[in-house]
Amino acid sequence: MVSYRCADCGSSRIGDGSRPTKRQMTSNRLSVAVVGCGYWGPNLIRNFADNPRSCVTWLVDRDPARLHRLAERYPAARRATELDDALQDPGLGAVAIATPVSTHFALAARCLRAGKHVLLEKPMARTVVECDELIRLAREGNLTLLVDHTFIYTGAVRKIKELIAAQELGDIYYFDSVRVNLGLFQHDVNVVWDLAPHDLSIMDNVLPQRPHQLAAHGACHVAGSRMENIAYLALKFADDTLAHFHVNWLAPAKIRRIIIGGSKRMLVYDDLSPDEKIKIYDRGLKMKNEADPRQFLAEYRIGDLYVPNVDSTEALKREADHFLDCIQLGVSPESDGAAGRRVVRILEAAQESLERNGVLVDL
Amino acid sequence: MVSYRCADCGSSRIGDGSRPTKRQMTSNRLSVAVVGCGYWGPNLIRNFADNPRSCVTWLVDRDPARLHRLAERYPAARRATELDDALQDPGLGAVAIATPVSTHFALAARCLRAGKHVLLEKPMARTVVECDELIRLAREGNLTLLVDHTFIYTGAVRKIKELIAAQELGDIYYFDSVRVNLGLFQHDVNVVWDLAPHDLSIMDNVLPQRPHQLAAHGACHVAGSRMENIAYLALKFADDTLAHFHVNWLAPAKIRRIIIGGSKRMLVYDDLSPDEKIKIYDRGLKMKNEADPRQFLAEYRIGDLYVPNVDSTEALKREADHFLDCIQLGVSPESDGAAGRRVVRILEAAQESLERNGVLVDL
Amino acid sequence: MVSYRCADCGSSRIGDGSRPTKRQMTSNRLSVAVVGCGYWGPNLIRNFADNPRSCVTWLVDRDPARLHRLAERYPAARRATELDDALQDPGLGAVAIATPVSTHFALAARCLRAGKHVLLEKPMARTVVECDELIRLAREGNLTLLVDHTFIYTGAVRKIKELIAAQELGDIYYFDSVRVNLGLFQHDVNVVWDLAPHDLSIMDNVLPQRPHQLAAHGACHVAGSRMENIAYLALKFADDTLAHFHVNWLAPAKIRRIIIGGSKRMLVYDDLSPDEKIKIYDRGLKMKNEADPRQFLAEYRIGDLYVPNVDSTEALKREADHFLDCIQLGVSPESDGAAGRRVVRILEAAQESLERNGVLVDL
Amino acid sequence: MVSYRCADCGSSRIGDGSRPTKRQMTSNRLSVAVVGCGYWGPNLIRNFADNPRSCVTWLVDRDPARLHRLAERYPAARRATELDDALQDPGLGAVAIATPVSTHFALAARCLRAGKHVLLEKPMARTVVECDELIRLAREGNLTLLVDHTFIYTGAVRKIKELIAAQELGDIYYFDSVRVNLGLFQHDVNVVWDLAPHDLSIMDNVLPQRPHQLAAHGACHVAGSRMENIAYLALKFADDTLAHFHVNWLAPAKIRRIIIGGSKRMLVYDDLSPDEKIKIYDRGLKMKNEADPRQFLAEYRIGDLYVPNVDSTEALKREADHFLDCIQLGVSPESDGAAGRRVVRILEAAQESLERNGVLVDL
Repeated sequence: MVSYRCADCGSSRIGDGSRPTKRQMTSNRLSVAVVGCGYWGPNLIRNFADNPRSCVTWLVDRDPARLHRLAERYPAARRATELDDALQDPGLGAVAIATPVSTHFALAARCLRAGKHVLLEKPMARTVVECDELIRLAREGNLTLLVDHTFIYTGAVRKIKELIAAQELGDIYYFDSVRVNLGLFQHDVNVVWDLAPHDLSIMDNVLPQRPHQLAAHGACHVAGSRMENIAYLALKFADDTLAHFHVNWLAPAKIRRIIIGGSKRMLVYDDLSPDEKIKIYDRGLKMKNEADPRQFLAEYRIGDLYVPNVDSTEALKREADHFLDCIQLGVSPESDGAAGRRVVRILEAAQESLERNGVLVDL
Repeated sequence: MVSYRCADCGSSRIGDGSRPTKRQMTSNRLSVAVVGCGYWGPNLIRNFADNPRSCVTWLVDRDPARLHRLAERYPAARRATELDDALQDPGLGAVAIATPVSTHFALAARCLRAGKHVLLEKPMARTVVECDELIRLAREGNLTLLVDHTFIYTGAVRKIKELIAAQELGDIYYFDSVRVNLGLFQHDVNVVWDLAPHDLSIMDNVLPQRPHQLAAHGACHVAGSRMENIAYLALKFADDTLAHFHVNWLAPAKIRRIIIGGSKRMLVYDDLSPDEKIKIYDRGLKMKNEADPRQFLAEYRIGDLYVPNVDSTEALKREADHFLDCIQLGVSPESDGAAGRRVVRILEAAQESLERNGVLVDL
Repeated sequence: MVSYRCADCGSSRIGDGSRPTKRQMTSNRLSVAVVGCGYWGPNLIRNFADNPRSCVTWLVDRDPARLHRLAERYPAARRATELDDALQDPGLGAVAIATPVSTHFALAARCLRAGKHVLLEKPMARTVVECDELIRLAREGNLTLLVDHTFIYTGAVRKIKELIAAQELGDIYYFDSVRVNLGLFQHDVNVVWDLAPHDLSIMDNVLPQRPHQLAAHGACHVAGSRMENIAYLALKFADDTLAHFHVNWLAPAKIRRIIIGGSKRMLVYDDLSPDEKIKIYDRGLKMKNEADPRQFLAEYRIGDLYVPNVDSTEALKREADHFLDCIQLGVSPESDGAAGRRVVRILEAAQESLERNGVLVDL
Repeated sequence: MVSYRCADCGSSRIGDGSRPTKRQMTSNRLSVAVVGCGYWGPNLIRNFADNPRSCVTWLVDRDPARLHRLAERYPAARRATELDDALQDPGLGAVAIATPVSTHFALAARCLRAGKHVLLEKPMARTVVECDELIRLAREGNLTLLVDHTFIYTGAVRKIKELIAAQELGDIYYFDSVRVNLGLFQHDVNVVWDLAPHDLSIMDNVLPQRPHQLAAHGACHVAGSRMENIAYLALKFADDTLAHFHVNWLAPAKIRRIIIGGSKRMLVYDDLSPDEKIKIYDRGLKMKNEADPRQFLAEYRIGDLYVPNVDSTEALKREADHFLDCIQLGVSPESDGAAGRRVVRILEAAQESLERNGVLVDL
């Protein structure tokens, strides 16, 4: 542990020193620009500012008033209403983008072309074509491209992934997700694009299989809007696995719950529970040997219930650390462009199914 | 209030006396046969036995051991393994049928042809063709045909119906139902036919609109079975109303919850809550006047929450009373053959959609 | 397994035959009289009637209307408004008493003097003097005297006892009980005598230590009544164990919860939870070695949470079986007269403390 | 609304301008020093820093490392390890003190003698003698002395106070509080001094009556400590009102719940519920007219349940505003020295009762 002064932000801190980065850095700490300082951006700013291996050197937003307010807390960061001002800074190492999805592709492409690593808000882009291009740019520039699938960095989802990988649940039968609340209507995306990426990225991360077909049903209840505020997605897999997602901006009470059924055990993940986020039920089917066709084919088995203690580290802190590791050690992000693309492909297909009255779309 | 002796069961009780029935009765009390004495039958027996306007004179079941056990509690009732033995009894006024769905049509048709009123377990039959024939037989025989949609006789559902009818929720936006638990697998019907009739009959009873299209997705996870143990039904209406049903025999924990979203208020009906079955949320959308396309179109409004006290009378007690009223006063049952047929039509369509991989089926 | 006909009730059943009893029985089944057929009595009747080793031959109650109603269900049982009519029956083996506490002593003493085994509703009697006399009568008559501490026969309490006996919780620090609801006011006993016996008998059963001092605080809010409707009992032990009981007839919502803190683990028993009655928390203190007086002495440790599956056999069924075992095998009841007396001693002391404004009373 | 520059902290903001203060201020904003920057202090700093009518000009703490860390966020505030450095600043208007209780009297007295307004952490002091002296100093100096009874500034407690004042609950029968969790053991105070002030200050604020006697029972389970980690307080009033407090540092799960029983309605305040903090039950007693001594004296009445929407403004924000109002308008704080003294008197009495094995102490 050594004390040092950051060449960019000028702060003097006690950190773990500078590990060599895969790219030439002008400073001990990775210099980060945050683009989009509205709802989510301040969380990115705080986490890169608090991380001893990075500092926030640029705040970029179209709205000068927002920048002005943030400047009180982060006086050392430069402010810009245009991304290019930041990109021209040769000391800038990475850009974290938290803008509306319609701008993701253009902004991320400019950053990658300027040789900057990118942390990109989910969903990654509007189309898989855009995703493919961003993946190509990152690969060719030898740059890290991490999609901000925040939930996969929570202690709860990591625990679920670990349990499934260790075959604790057995074969996965279904993945049922409900994410509903009284949410703010957005003018540019429907509820699927707004809420489903959370749960789709969790499914993508924890399940070993990939879905291959999808149908979506939804409705719009806001006069004058054509954006669905409620939707249901059914995803089919090559085997008998079934995944289902209920997203809803117009529910009276908040529910954020995923049920995963397996051949050995079943699991409920309630993100709103302060102490019992994951419940593992040692319950399931018990086959009967009887061949009597008038009898039931199967009966159930009830064992104990187990609530593992879950690491409560802030997901974004872990994600920021992982982003810095990827840049410095050259490893691939857990939520890389390919994961981002898979989620966008599902969103694209859901959109098509919604528009065609629930038709089944191949993924 | 007069004391009298029942001509059929011989018991002497203090009751509300004999009201004239629309059909010629041989006794003060309606004489009822219960067919099918397995899981649900004993509840029918108890309710008709305890009702001062009826008595149970016949217990009919294929299994003599079952009949033997029941005889200890109801020694005055005659026992039969064949329905026809009971139907030949000229004093018998009505038959309550609680057998597997595949037998409903044949049994109910025989009862109606024998001039007996019928209370028929849900789902009413396997097909709408069967339903139509039963409706015709009842109409021609001037007989009461009541389908046992038990839930619509609960205090909770009656309260919901009353709230919707009084426009307390405003226009209905969606009806979202989840009924999942670790249930016994059945050999003859899938989870849709087993669980969905409860919620479909509730929807049919409380909503003013009728669905006109349906898609269903499901899966089967029991080796050797072809019966779905998990399924999702999406129902579309002529307007923007959307209804959705999740039924699941393989869920680790029990959930029985219906959310109804309306333009004025929203409601959660949790059947498992002992004290707070219905929560009415004074929450919803608040439109903004601003035309700025960069702003949200709508924002939400949060008011108080209200939990009405709900009548806890046993649903089947109320239903038995209603059945007797229908017979004696000639009124039409709240859950009549037409209601039973509408539920069966949805089940039929769901079956077709499941078999054709989620295709949209017209209702 | 043999089929046989009971000499007393005349029923023919398939049972496990007759094991020899410690007393001379006139029949294959123990013939039981139930005295007091109000709220709790019918549960005793049902359990002894359903048990293949016993039959209910006498129903005794002051109220002929009650007896009349029960006769419909149990036509073979004789009815009496006076206990002595039943006691004169030489075939009667045992009496289950479910009358108000003020009558317990007189009724139980008469039964014991008549040579009948006794199952006696809790609390056992009004005073320890009465308890001592009943214990003496049972011992001298070589008769079984079981106090109906129903809760100790539940799967949940048996599991708790097992966990504590196996040192799974470590040393017991405290036992905190809350039993509150909107209850019916009784004219003859206060809330302590009505509700606390449940929790006191649980504590008596599961804890290895015995309390040696008590203080009680309460209040009465019913005009014209002098019976407390809310009370708090604090019980002290020779070591640092502390037990506390909150009983309340005037609480808006029902709570039935016991928290047991131990040096290794802690436990919450929520009797109202359908699926998670017992939660075992692997949480507690972790001592620090630091001697710095400005630092905390201890910090906490958080591990997993475990919800054991609990046997759901009806407590009274298990208790009736145990009563029959005690009679036939001569073993001592788990809730014997001594246990009943310990609970009464605490109630007596609580009464004294309430009357003397919370003074500490030795047990 | 005018833009102005603060003379002390130098920041330029848009605020509601400068209202005249009752004391001569050197600036537009009240200049505040925060003493004690550990657990709670940073919340005071943030609230006075964010309030447009105040600025934080001094951070005082014994620990230079803490001051160093805070300086990154509040670079404009001066730092001191000695309070007197701040008190010598003639521009300083008020001091917020968040240090251990043993230091409250000495620090607050110095501030008041130096002519500074004081916001003092709860409990106000160790003894009522200390409280009386602080009250005297404030009165003589014409200074505001506000005790930080944070909870009384929450939307929930304000709603409760309003309901009781409007006689919505009728006469108050009891006030039952449980505040338990797995808490950090403190070396200088027991669990009563640590947790009970929250609930005692709520009771003091919402109830119209004052308690006049107290008994406390507790135990210590930490080897080598003599500080109680669990305690029960029973408080008696001149009428039949009863208040009771359970505080516990060694509970496996967090409970923060107050039940208030009244003659008309009852209320449950669950501070941990995100959406349903206050439930108002229209339940209670219904008197019977029958004089039959064998019947119940009273039976219960069950009506609807109502969950008012509660203002979610941060309590400390409202309290800081109120503190500034008191200073500028000369009004008396809602949590003034007298309220602080009443809470301390109860703590003192509880301590005495604990030490004398639960003896009843007059208040």
